[in-house]
Amino acid sequence: MFFTVYVPKDRQLKKIINIGDVAGLRKFLKGKRPVDIAELFIDLSLQEQIFIVKSIPLDVSAAVVQELSYAQQAEIFQVLDDQAVRSLLLKISADDLVDLLAELSVEERERLLRLSSEKQGEMRSLLDFPEDTAGGLMTTEFVTVKATTTAEEAIELVRYWANRVETVAYAYVTSEEDKLIGVVSLRQLVISDPKAQVREFMFAPVIKCFPETHQEIVAQILQKYDFVALPVVDHEDKLLGLVTIDDVIDVIIEEATEDLSRLSGTEPLDEPYLQSTVKKMVQKRVGWLLVLFVTASFTSSILKHFEDMLEAVVVLAFFIPLLIDTGGNTGSQSAALLIRALGVGEASTKDLARIIWREVRVGIAMGSLLGIGSAILAYVLGGNMLVGITVGIALLLVVIMAAVIGAFLPMVAYKLKMDPAVVAGPFITTLVDSLGLLVYFSLALWIMGM
Amino acid sequence: MFFTVYVPKDRQLKKIINIGDVAGLRKFLKGKRPVDIAELFIDLSLQEQIFIVKSIPLDVSAAVVQELSYAQQAEIFQVLDDQAVRSLLLKISADDLVDLLAELSVEERERLLRLSSEKQGEMRSLLDFPEDTAGGLMTTEFVTVKATTTAEEAIELVRYWANRVETVAYAYVTSEEDKLIGVVSLRQLVISDPKAQVREFMFAPVIKCFPETHQEIVAQILQKYDFVALPVVDHEDKLLGLVTIDDVIDVIIEEATEDLSRLSGTEPLDEPYLQSTVKKMVQKRVGWLLVLFVTASFTSSILKHFEDMLEAVVVLAFFIPLLIDTGGNTGSQSAALLIRALGVGEASTKDLARIIWREVRVGIAMGSLLGIGSAILAYVLGGNMLVGITVGIALLLVVIMAAVIGAFLPMVAYKLKMDPAVVAGPFITTLVDSLGLLVYFSLALWIMGM
Repeated sequence: MFFTVYVPKDRQLKKIINIGDVAGLRKFLKGKRPVDIAELFIDLSLQEQIFIVKSIPLDVSAAVVQELSYAQQAEIFQVLDDQAVRSLLLKISADDLVDLLAELSVEERERLLRLSSEKQGEMRSLLDFPEDTAGGLMTTEFVTVKATTTAEEAIELVRYWANRVETVAYAYVTSEEDKLIGVVSLRQLVISDPKAQVREFMFAPVIKCFPETHQEIVAQILQKYDFVALPVVDHEDKLLGLVTIDDVIDVIIEEATEDLSRLSGTEPLDEPYLQSTVKKMVQKRVGWLLVLFVTASFTSSILKHFEDMLEAVVVLAFFIPLLIDTGGNTGSQSAALLIRALGVGEASTKDLARIIWREVRVGIAMGSLLGIGSAILAYVLGGNMLVGITVGIALLLVVIMAAVIGAFLPMVAYKLKMDPAVVAGPFITTLVDSLGLLVYFSLALWIMGM
Repeated sequence: MFFTVYVPKDRQLKKIINIGDVAGLRKFLKGKRPVDIAELFIDLSLQEQIFIVKSIPLDVSAAVVQELSYAQQAEIFQVLDDQAVRSLLLKISADDLVDLLAELSVEERERLLRLSSEKQGEMRSLLDFPEDTAGGLMTTEFVTVKATTTAEEAIELVRYWANRVETVAYAYVTSEEDKLIGVVSLRQLVISDPKAQVREFMFAPVIKCFPETHQEIVAQILQKYDFVALPVVDHEDKLLGLVTIDDVIDVIIEEATEDLSRLSGTEPLDEPYLQSTVKKMVQKRVGWLLVLFVTASFTSSILKHFEDMLEAVVVLAFFIPLLIDTGGNTGSQSAALLIRALGVGEASTKDLARIIWREVRVGIAMGSLLGIGSAILAYVLGGNMLVGITVGIALLLVVIMAAVIGAFLPMVAYKLKMDPAVVAGPFITTLVDSLGLLVYFSLALWIMGM
């Protein structure tokens, strides 16, 4: 409801654009943030979008373009003439440009690289870092001061840089050899004695990371210390860039989406659910289903192996879904808890033994309860005490096994530097199902003495 | 590796504390952030913790105490005398105090309320808002200026307030009637002409929310606009407080953990995995397993209903796990995609028809592929063409059904203001399993003409 002010009045907007009313357009857009203007673009034709880009001040249009998807940006750049593209590119930060270039056709990439020649050096150095590291996330624009700079002079520097760099919440203090030795917040600068030198009130040592640090670790550090930016340094302690909080929030959401999707056996969609095509959705989802399908055929083979047993006591088949579902659910509980614990840094592979022992105990507790319940159920439905005992013990064992496997597999994946959530979903299900059925029918053979 | 500087040297620390070396302690802790000092507490006895709290400046010790868990805080307050507690409480912000009080025994709560009498009014107003709303998250400390204040004067105000309030990234502009009419960033204040009045460069209208706005919406707004704080106003537009980015990051992580846990059929743990007791873990996990267990007994009843069929064609039992796993997995894929889409605001219940139609098509595409595969598998393992056809068609139908149910249930829950992830996990599995088995055996009856 607090969005009322921003409800897109597209018909009015389209009318303004179609009569070419630049003054009316500026009035219509006044007070709107770039991200709000970018949202209006969804309902506009490419021509209408271009009209807006050309009619508003360059600062604003650059900010709006940066809020669009890379596909939309590419379309707009394709239509604009070289001069207009060049002006826009100069206003877009090197790290955003690098991300955009990665999404373009070779031809368009060459053109944009040519038109942003001033930034090529900077962009090339950014291209060296994988997308999911601090180096891939960082902006290379920041404010530095010397230790002997006064608060007053530092504020002057911030004032000078404020229009050119993304974040002026902090100024970084560097030594004569350009090493990062401290950090001061804009707040600190404002409240300090104007004549005081930065070294007197700067914070040191600085919490920092390296370009190769994984984005998940960067997010953990920023979250722990409640910073709005984290400096990235090379191994000589030279400041390379900053990762800012807004990028980190996107990372946290991206990582959470990845975990949730993969644990549920689908690759995350790269675009909003409703904007994704059916074909793309099938591509993201069918892979894991096929893997699951192939491995699930093991379960069919195992059951075929026990065909005689099944034929003799068909009642045993009644409890296959119960056994499988309970096992699968227990396993995904453990997996979900472990994936989050690993993801937010609450557990590490060093804790393996403790974690397994913990899951064994949890499994025994839950398995006993469910085992007794299912033994009674099996006795009632099957009318056979031995079937009841078989089902009860099988369920106990399956729950313990599932709890352990559900914790163990994500930890192994983590150790092997794979995404724990990828192995968790389908593999745990299959392993738990197959082992569970083996246990169940072996127990049945043994207990019923066949 | 960049944490090396902060590796707790507990033995050294314990030694310093045990000889009562206050100067040594201050030197040891120098350059450490409050959150780092709080981490050291884990390995210390309560007496040792108290020694630190008493030996460091009050500002620092208050900040350290706020980084501890509520249980740890309660322990420390219990041991400290009234005067020491009072000094600490005065330094802790009202919103943190409110959260702490909620975790205490009645007795301790009374004592702390008595010792922080100055803040009672403020705390009482905060207690009115549920924990998961903007009102429950907000801090009531912020900087306001009038529209006619100059940049220079505003900076003076910020300087005055900087030691008392949490966030000075923004100053909020209020009218004579105390209505929120604009916002200026500290950055903007610093770069503006010192004599310029705030109204000349303030940003308006202000993006804001109400105390009852759900935390997930607050997170979406802050993420969309890349703000570091969002103002909370009452329905007369009077500023009540601020939700800051660090709290929102915690919310995002909490919501993601909740989604992941609940989708996997467990309640989220309230504490880190390794610090949770086995008993608590069982409590969080066994509930859903029991629900699942009760509903899974439907599947046993359904199978019992088809006992004659199963006895006649025992081969049909071989493909129960395959059918159930594929259905369950397809359902949780849809659920995971929808829960994220609803959670980050990419889809709403208005899109229900579009979403269902989309899932039907995805289901047909994936189901056809898997159906053909399973028909071949069933023919090979079962040696019977009719079984192959039955399994193939059943799998196609189950996949379509699962895709639709997996999307439908979370949306219904969302509409009913329940957490979509809670219904998703166990209910989808059970519904898909039961309907799947019904479809499978009904098809078998029909195709094999019995």
